Amino acid sequence: MPPHQTPAADDSTARQTVDLVIYAAHVIPVVPRGVILSDHAIVIDNARIIALLPRDEAVAQFVGTEERHLPKHIVTPGLVNLHTHSAMTLLRGLSDDKPLCDWLAQDIWPTEGAFVGPDFIKTGTKHAVAEMLRSGTTCCNDMYFFPDQVCEVLEEAGFRAAVGQVVMEFPGPYGSGPDDYLAKAKPNLEKYAPGCHDLITVTMSPHAPYTVSDKNLERADALAREHKARVHIHLHETASECCDSEALNRQSMSCHQSDQKLRPLANLKRMGLLSEHLICAHMTQLTAEEIHDVAAAGAHVAHCPSSNLKLASGIAPVAAMLKAGVNVGIGTDGAASNNSLDMFGEMKLAAILAKAQTLQSFSVPAAEALQMATLNGARALGLEKEIGSIEVGKRADVIAVECDSIEMIPMYNAISHIVYVAGRENVSDVWINGKHLLANRQLTTIDEAEVKKSVYKWAAKIQAHREQKTE
Amino acid sequence: MPPHQTPAADDSTARQTVDLVIYAAHVIPVVPRGVILSDHAIVIDNARIIALLPRDEAVAQFVGTEERHLPKHIVTPGLVNLHTHSAMTLLRGLSDDKPLCDWLAQDIWPTEGAFVGPDFIKTGTKHAVAEMLRSGTTCCNDMYFFPDQVCEVLEEAGFRAAVGQVVMEFPGPYGSGPDDYLAKAKPNLEKYAPGCHDLITVTMSPHAPYTVSDKNLERADALAREHKARVHIHLHETASECCDSEALNRQSMSCHQSDQKLRPLANLKRMGLLSEHLICAHMTQLTAEEIHDVAAAGAHVAHCPSSNLKLASGIAPVAAMLKAGVNVGIGTDGAASNNSLDMFGEMKLAAILAKAQTLQSFSVPAAEALQMATLNGARALGLEKEIGSIEVGKRADVIAVECDSIEMIPMYNAISHIVYVAGRENVSDVWINGKHLLANRQLTTIDEAEVKKSVYKWAAKIQAHREQKTE
Repeated sequence: MPPHQTPAADDSTARQTVDLVIYAAHVIPVVPRGVILSDHAIVIDNARIIALLPRDEAVAQFVGTEERHLPKHIVTPGLVNLHTHSAMTLLRGLSDDKPLCDWLAQDIWPTEGAFVGPDFIKTGTKHAVAEMLRSGTTCCNDMYFFPDQVCEVLEEAGFRAAVGQVVMEFPGPYGSGPDDYLAKAKPNLEKYAPGCHDLITVTMSPHAPYTVSDKNLERADALAREHKARVHIHLHETASECCDSEALNRQSMSCHQSDQKLRPLANLKRMGLLSEHLICAHMTQLTAEEIHDVAAAGAHVAHCPSSNLKLASGIAPVAAMLKAGVNVGIGTDGAASNNSLDMFGEMKLAAILAKAQTLQSFSVPAAEALQMATLNGARALGLEKEIGSIEVGKRADVIAVECDSIEMIPMYNAISHIVYVAGRENVSDVWINGKHLLANRQLTTIDEAEVKKSVYKWAAKIQAHREQKTE
Repeated sequence: MPPHQTPAADDSTARQTVDLVIYAAHVIPVVPRGVILSDHAIVIDNARIIALLPRDEAVAQFVGTEERHLPKHIVTPGLVNLHTHSAMTLLRGLSDDKPLCDWLAQDIWPTEGAFVGPDFIKTGTKHAVAEMLRSGTTCCNDMYFFPDQVCEVLEEAGFRAAVGQVVMEFPGPYGSGPDDYLAKAKPNLEKYAPGCHDLITVTMSPHAPYTVSDKNLERADALAREHKARVHIHLHETASECCDSEALNRQSMSCHQSDQKLRPLANLKRMGLLSEHLICAHMTQLTAEEIHDVAAAGAHVAHCPSSNLKLASGIAPVAAMLKAGVNVGIGTDGAASNNSLDMFGEMKLAAILAKAQTLQSFSVPAAEALQMATLNGARALGLEKEIGSIEVGKRADVIAVECDSIEMIPMYNAISHIVYVAGRENVSDVWINGKHLLANRQLTTIDEAEVKKSVYKWAAKIQAHREQKTE
């Protein structure tokens, strides 16, 4: 026996060889809520978690083809960003501190009109995936244009997403109008139907009640139901949306006059869209009765606290929704309105904002905020049996957060630290389907230098266009 | 002439030799507000800024004994943390998600009682200074115990602070009662009087109206005035403080019955404490009339948005205060209630929270948030002629933020990026009095490994004490 070979290695024939074993100082499985497992191992084979057990038991039973030792780390499920527009990273910080209508009409829409196309989407999405991986997000619910290019990037990078098939009433770079958007959605609804792909699912994404007519909302919903997909929509984002007084339409909508008398949520309910298939982004404006309706329907909410504050939209009544039984996840919104895709920032903000709103410091405690950013997001996407917690049988979407830095010490409770202390930069490793996509802060499937080069190229074009406009 | 010697070096006799020249892609001087200087140099000699000029002019006029080239960075004034309890880093995440009174009475006060002493303060303060330097803070307004030990750490590290001389009605590890606290303050008031030290000033820090009697508030104020020091106090932090219904006293206070009928701010005004010498931390509870009183008196406010949200205290009316002319700076509060000392997080939160509060997305624009976190903090401390902006004659307290990472690109406006995009981890370099205290993310005056070792030692003791208590 060579001197470096240990007796344990001799026993390896008696142990099961698996793809990967992650040994971690602290594991937060999210289910059951509030549990922190010390010195545990996550055993992964064929993209799934096959065991979660104390270190010694893991050493006795398994040999990993790869093994990762994380003695100063917390391991949690990967974060699920429940509402974003990935490729808008290219418009990060393009415009701020303006009323929503000016921000959209003067800056965002004209720039999108001039630049959004397949190449823009590929660069922007790849940039967003790099940012999300580096900040511990393993799945996003994306709503933007050119989904085929989005899917191409996701497959290359190995990143999980629900990819929105957008529907709007008016033409744009991606389509000539509702018929075209709906027609373009069909192949993806089939290709990425539930269970068909190990990374990608799709949603029907009618943009908002103020940009899609009732008729086309119904058509989008019918198509989604036919293919067992979710519907993802901006809803009750602002007070003006609800009172119909300051609609942000770029052109007149073809809504029935009678519909105008209902608030958007009530109108969706009337049409049968308010169901367990619906993911409502924002929801800052809700009456108690509306919260009850959302809960009763089993619809899901994507809470985007930074974006809602920054655009002065309001504060979603998260504690009240959770109390009523609504499934509330967390999203960053796009980088043009946040201006980051940092789910750690959103988790902390969701937890502390809820306390100020209720004036109760025990509202949305840390464990609940972490569940919102993981399992609740998975549930909203219909993926709660696949991701969102560290449980045997689930896909191995897990992240490691280093907790030995000046900023992270001391630590009395790992769950508190994940929510209230950790920053995006503390994420050391990310796995999706057991594949190591961020290894000690290095991206393994994305060429960071190439992404930066492409982003700078787009930024220069966009900047030149802005300067031309203001000349 | 040796081949590596360039013609420029030959001209050096014609150029002024200075301690340091910082060449940066972007400089935000804060004064004038909203200005971004491209490709500029900050020339530093004898701890002060002696020139701010375009790169080419600097190259022609100055030779730095040290030169730092920051081609992908934004340089701003160092951030001023206007309200913190530095050494409470050792209690980071000790307790969360509890009502304020339980948090204090069950967890914070008993732990402080058992552990706070000179060694605790030295370790905790050094830890806090390391965290603040690594996140771009160059000055803090500290309120805690054992100020002599705090000053010792500050001098060793080269960190700037206003060090609170605490006064409370009851005895504690640091003193036997008000007479003792006041007596202990005198030597420091003299030693660190304005202009006497190049890093340290002091404040009188009566903890709060609910923990200090009127008589001792007046004595603390008189002592401060005698030595031209500020008074730093927690004020109108919670609704219960103001309505006197749920006072958090650990023991009964000796307030006059008549005082009880006034809100704390009105009572301070009655006693003559409400003046340009007063720094009021928190101020979440303010009527329009009270805002007017604060503005008229020229008193200063330390806005601590994360702490106020997390403890469910409320949201300070920042936009209304600024509109009324109140000088509002930003603080993190202690790491036990935040749970970080991250001024980047606070700047962003201050800017976006104000918008949701006013329902106007142009409230507290990025440039104003940055001014709050720099110049307004300096002004509150009476240091506006020394720090808070990058202007000729001021002390060289400056920081560099790297903007070439995936998270920071693209960049259309450097001020927007500092407030809405940058994280603590993007700070690359920090200078205080022209001394390079963080160099490419390495601390130069603090032994990081030694700090960590001491923090872990304290954390183990505190954890053991908690476990003993719950057994």
